[in-house]
Amino acid sequence: MADVPYASALVIGAGGGISASVARAFAGAGLAVALAARDPGKLAALAGEVGGAAFAVDAADPAGMERLFAEVDGAIGAPDVVVYNPSLRARGSILDLDPEDVRSAIAVSAFGEFLAVQQAARRMVPKGRGAVLFTGASASVKGYPLSAPFAMGKFALRGLAQSAARELGPKGIHVAHVVIDGAVRSASRPEPADRPDSMLDPDAVAQTYLSLLRQPRSAWSLEVELRPWVESF
Amino acid sequence: MADVPYASALVIGAGGGISASVARAFAGAGLAVALAARDPGKLAALAGEVGGAAFAVDAADPAGMERLFAEVDGAIGAPDVVVYNPSLRARGSILDLDPEDVRSAIAVSAFGEFLAVQQAARRMVPKGRGAVLFTGASASVKGYPLSAPFAMGKFALRGLAQSAARELGPKGIHVAHVVIDGAVRSASRPEPADRPDSMLDPDAVAQTYLSLLRQPRSAWSLEVELRPWVESF
Amino acid sequence: MADVPYASALVIGAGGGISASVARAFAGAGLAVALAARDPGKLAALAGEVGGAAFAVDAADPAGMERLFAEVDGAIGAPDVVVYNPSLRARGSILDLDPEDVRSAIAVSAFGEFLAVQQAARRMVPKGRGAVLFTGASASVKGYPLSAPFAMGKFALRGLAQSAARELGPKGIHVAHVVIDGAVRSASRPEPADRPDSMLDPDAVAQTYLSLLRQPRSAWSLEVELRPWVESF
Amino acid sequence: MADVPYASALVIGAGGGISASVARAFAGAGLAVALAARDPGKLAALAGEVGGAAFAVDAADPAGMERLFAEVDGAIGAPDVVVYNPSLRARGSILDLDPEDVRSAIAVSAFGEFLAVQQAARRMVPKGRGAVLFTGASASVKGYPLSAPFAMGKFALRGLAQSAARELGPKGIHVAHVVIDGAVRSASRPEPADRPDSMLDPDAVAQTYLSLLRQPRSAWSLEVELRPWVESF
Repeated sequence: MADVPYASALVIGAGGGISASVARAFAGAGLAVALAARDPGKLAALAGEVGGAAFAVDAADPAGMERLFAEVDGAIGAPDVVVYNPSLRARGSILDLDPEDVRSAIAVSAFGEFLAVQQAARRMVPKGRGAVLFTGASASVKGYPLSAPFAMGKFALRGLAQSAARELGPKGIHVAHVVIDGAVRSASRPEPADRPDSMLDPDAVAQTYLSLLRQPRSAWSLEVELRPWVESF
Repeated sequence: MADVPYASALVIGAGGGISASVARAFAGAGLAVALAARDPGKLAALAGEVGGAAFAVDAADPAGMERLFAEVDGAIGAPDVVVYNPSLRARGSILDLDPEDVRSAIAVSAFGEFLAVQQAARRMVPKGRGAVLFTGASASVKGYPLSAPFAMGKFALRGLAQSAARELGPKGIHVAHVVIDGAVRSASRPEPADRPDSMLDPDAVAQTYLSLLRQPRSAWSLEVELRPWVESF
Repeated sequence: MADVPYASALVIGAGGGISASVARAFAGAGLAVALAARDPGKLAALAGEVGGAAFAVDAADPAGMERLFAEVDGAIGAPDVVVYNPSLRARGSILDLDPEDVRSAIAVSAFGEFLAVQQAARRMVPKGRGAVLFTGASASVKGYPLSAPFAMGKFALRGLAQSAARELGPKGIHVAHVVIDGAVRSASRPEPADRPDSMLDPDAVAQTYLSLLRQPRSAWSLEVELRPWVESF
Repeated sequence: MADVPYASALVIGAGGGISASVARAFAGAGLAVALAARDPGKLAALAGEVGGAAFAVDAADPAGMERLFAEVDGAIGAPDVVVYNPSLRARGSILDLDPEDVRSAIAVSAFGEFLAVQQAARRMVPKGRGAVLFTGASASVKGYPLSAPFAMGKFALRGLAQSAARELGPKGIHVAHVVIDGAVRSASRPEPADRPDSMLDPDAVAQTYLSLLRQPRSAWSLEVELRPWVESF
C-alpha cells in the first residue's frame, strides 16, 4: 500500500467521532496533526494521543479562521491536508424554526468550510499540492423534512466542494466530499447488540479518508459515500 | 386549459427579467399580484402594468420579511402563491473572494428564501393550500469554478426546496424549484440575431411557472429544468 | 394559454392509464392522434373516442417499429409528436430472476424507445421541429431492490433521453423525460377514499405532457417529475 | 493498512487497461485470481503474471456466464470478489445507428453484468459475504450526444448497481460502482508529455478497487468516481 504523500494535517471540528478517528489514522500514517475546535479544552486528550497541538477556533468567523491557520503555520507549518467536520443542525418545522438558528446552521456547516478552503488554498496553490476533505452527510444530497437548516448547510457544502474541485483540482489540490450516510457509533451512542456493524464505525470512516489521501492525482475521487451494509437508502 | 386555482401572488425580487414576466403572466391569468424588491422605486412601472402594489424588502432580513408579508396581507390578503427570485453572485477565485461577499450571496440566494417560505407556510398551512416557487439555476445542481458563492447559495436553495416539499407537500402546499439553465434575454442583453431563441425568453419561462400553478395536487412537479434548445449542458 | 404548435401525435404503448389520458388530452387540443399497442384490439374504444387510428406494434422489434411509422405516415402523416410509454417489469430477487425476463424488460422499456426515437428523428430532423416524450418512473433515478430489471430499463431510458436531448435539441426536437413517481389510479386500482389525490390522476399527468408541448424552444424542459402531494420520496 | 478480507477474485472482461491492473493489484494483495474474456488467448501473458487461470466467456450469454462460474468454482473455488469490466460502445447519430449495435451495447455493458451478479450472488449469499465491483463511466451519470448506446448501457449498469446494493448489501455483499471519468492511458494511447497525469493511470484506478475491498461493512461505498486532476467535468 502506497505511503501517504503528505506530511501534515489540520483537522477542524475535532472532538469525538469521525474527526478523532481521522486524527488518529493520520497520525498513525505518519502525519503531523493539528486539531482545532470551538472548545480546545475538549481536545486535550486527543492531542496528547496523536502528539498534536490543539487550537481554538470559531469556524464561522473569518478572522478566527485566518488566525487559526497562522497559528498552525507556526506550530507544524502550513498543513498539506485540511479536514473540515463542523456542522450544526437545527431540527423543526419550517413553521417554527428560529431564523437565527438557520443562519447559524449554514454558517457553521458551509460558510466555515469556505473560510477553511480559502486559507488552505492560499497555502497549497503555490506548492501545487494538498488535499481538502469535506465531511458531508446524506443531507448533502437529499433534503429531509423537518431538517431544512441542515439540508441548506450540507447542500451548500456540496456545491462548494464541486466548485472548489473544478477550480483547485487543476492546481494540484485534491478536494473530496465524503457523504456520511448513517449514524456514527460512539461510547454514548452504541449500536444495538443484535445489529452488528449497523452504525458507522468512525475508524472505518477514517480508513476511507486515508485512502483518499493515497490516491494518485491521475485518479482522484471528488465524492465518496459511506454507509453501513444494512442501512436503508 | 384549467384555470389557475389561486387568487393572489407575491413576487419577491421583482424587477426585470423572469420576475416581471411572471408577474405579468400571473396578472394575465387573473391573480392579484403584489411585488417586492429592495428598491421598490424600480417596480413602479411594472406595478402599474399588472395593477399591483409594490413593497420594499431586504429579503435576507428576518424582520423585514415578516413586515413584508404583513403589508401584503393588508393589501391583497395572504398570498396564495409566493415566488422567490433574488440571488446574488460573487464571482472570483477562492483565493481572492471576500468572505463577506460569500456570506451575502448565501443570505440573499437561500436564507431569504427560508424566510419567505416560513412566512408563506404560516399563512398557507392553516388553509391547506398554496404554492411556493423557487427560481433556481444550473448552479443549483452543478458547482461551477470561480463561482463558489453562487453555487453555495443555489445548492442551499435546492436543499431547502426538497426539505420544504417533503414537509409542506402533505399539508397541501406545492413547493417547486425551477432550474434556469441558460442566460435570460432582455433589452440590455439581447440574443445574437443569428441564433434565434438561444437565450431564455422570460415570458416563456413564466409560462412554465403558470403551468406549475395549474397542476392538480395528484401530480405535482418539485423540480423542473428550463433551457434553450441550443444550450450546451 | 398558447395553442399547441403541433398537428399530429403518435402514442405508443397506448391502452389505459397515462397513455389513454395523453391521447385524449392531445385530441382535445386539436392534434390528430394515432395509437399503437401490442394488441390493437384493446385500443378500439379509445381510438373511437379520440377519432384516431390504431396500429399493432411489437415495440422492441426494429422492423415492427419501422413498419408502424410507415403506417402512421400513411394515415395521419409523419407525426409531429411521439410519446413512448411501454415498460415491462420483472420483479424478484437477483438470485431468482430469469435472465430472459431481464432481457425483455430492458428491450421493452428502453430499446423500443430507441427504435421510436430513431424513426421519429428521421422524420423530424428534416423539418427542424417535433417532440418526443418519454414516460419514465421513479425507477429512472433510483434503483429499487427486488426490481433490477425495471431499474435497468428505466435508467437506460433516462440515459437515452439525455443523449437524445443533447443531439436532437439543437436540431429543433424537444426531448423530454417525465419521471412518474407514484401509483396511477384507475378503475381497477382506485385510490383509498380517505386519501384523496394520493394516487396520480392520469388526466393530471396528461396535462403536464400537454404543457411540455406548449413550451417555446427558448425554454424547454428535459426532465420533469410528477408525484402526488402526499407521496413519500 | 488492513489486509484484504477476501481470498479469491474473478475479473471478467480482462485484457489490458483497468482490468489487467486490477488483476495485478489483487494478486499482489494475496488473492487467487481468475480471468475471463471473450478471447482467452489474449489473457495468457496476464494469467502467467498473476498466477491465475484464464477462461473464455461471452459475457452476454446466460449459459456462458453460468458455465464460467462453474469452471472458476473448479479452479479456485467460488470467487469472493467479482469484477465486471466489459462494455461496448457504438457511436453515431441516432439517425444512423444500427439498432443491432444498440442491442449489443446494452447486452455487453449491462445485461452481462446482471448475469455476473446473479451467479456471484448465488455463491456469496449463502456465505454472507463477498464483493461485486462494477466498472462504470462518466456515461453512467451523463448521457452524451452521439453516444446513445453507451449511455443506455452504462445508465442501466448504474441502475443495476443500486438495485443490487439495496438487495444484497444487507446480505453481506458489497456492491460498488466505480465511475471512470476520463481516458485511461496505455502503451497504445499514451498521455501527452506536457500534461502529466492527465489520463487515468490504470494502476491508480486499481488502487481504489483494492481500497473498496478493504472497507469494513460498517462503512461501505456504493459509488466512487475517479478522474484525473486536470479533467474537465
